[in-house]
Amino acid sequence: MPHIALPEDMPGITAGFAFRPETAKPMRELAHVLLHTSGNDGFNSADRELVAAFVSSRNTCYFCQTSHGAAAAHLHEGGEDVVNAVCSDYKTAPISDKLKALLAIAEQVQIDGKRVSADLIAKAKADGATELDIHDTVLIAAAFCMYNRYVDGLATRQPHDAGMYAKMGKRMATQGYSSR
Amino acid sequence: MPHIALPEDMPGITAGFAFRPETAKPMRELAHVLLHTSGNDGFNSADRELVAAFVSSRNTCYFCQTSHGAAAAHLHEGGEDVVNAVCSDYKTAPISDKLKALLAIAEQVQIDGKRVSADLIAKAKADGATELDIHDTVLIAAAFCMYNRYVDGLATRQPHDAGMYAKMGKRMATQGYSSR
Repeated sequence: MPHIALPEDMPGITAGFAFRPETAKPMRELAHVLLHTSGNDGFNSADRELVAAFVSSRNTCYFCQTSHGAAAAHLHEGGEDVVNAVCSDYKTAPISDKLKALLAIAEQVQIDGKRVSADLIAKAKADGATELDIHDTVLIAAAFCMYNRYVDGLATRQPHDAGMYAKMGKRMATQGYSSR
Repeated sequence: MPHIALPEDMPGITAGFAFRPETAKPMRELAHVLLHTSGNDGFNSADRELVAAFVSSRNTCYFCQTSHGAAAAHLHEGGEDVVNAVCSDYKTAPISDKLKALLAIAEQVQIDGKRVSADLIAKAKADGATELDIHDTVLIAAAFCMYNRYVDGLATRQPHDAGMYAKMGKRMATQGYSSR
């Protein structure tokens, strides 16, 4: 049961957003920029959603991992197999070396930003990451340390309903976050 | 030295904001709502800045702890003694029981949102916290887990210059964050 009186029919972060529209607006906008509108060939929305799902899995946030995992699965040609591979061991997942190098940065940010080393940055650049790709990876990882704690810290309802997450993931992948 | 080419003359998060204005906008707006415009008698800006400084101290983010500590010191009648007391041991700091109960919630969110217990929520309510106070405490703590990781994950420049932080804290306390 949620710690505060959240709307009963809304899962996860959507209940917090409905409770407090003033903070929902910038939180949605940030996700929209980072995950939806900034995708390009080198680091697209599928990759960005994978980073979001991966960080959420490290923070063991069921709602965020499952919904962003569903969004990534909708966007990625490898579907949910790739999402599962990234969350269980990204180093052996069927993804590019560049994305592996970015996930290695995200992995450290999830613990503490100070753990990002010059070597990890150099590896990502050698594998083709731009300065913007690195910036956005650090910020996606940092932002999901916020979203995950928000969802879990309010004890939001997080139903186990695969159909619901598939539908939600498709909507997130196609429409983004700003007007949800 | 920063991991990416940030503007050289800008400290901490201001350099990340200058590098990427599209993400700076919602990040500033969120801080503005949580720390500046939502203050009321029961949980005012001084208290909110104390929570921000406290969480930043737990994440050992020098720039955020020092700048938000300076903002809290500017706003709080107890000045920087109260900030130092809260960051070193909030349970014995000269603050209200209600603020101690909210800090106990923030303390758990900083580690993992799932650690916020029903007992901590009940204690905060018994000490006078509203549902909105609890919501905002969870989100301030969660948001600083983002800001701190962003500042440290980019390896931003974080000068040790007490005068600079005092000036910055005064500006944050009086003008907020949205148009900085």
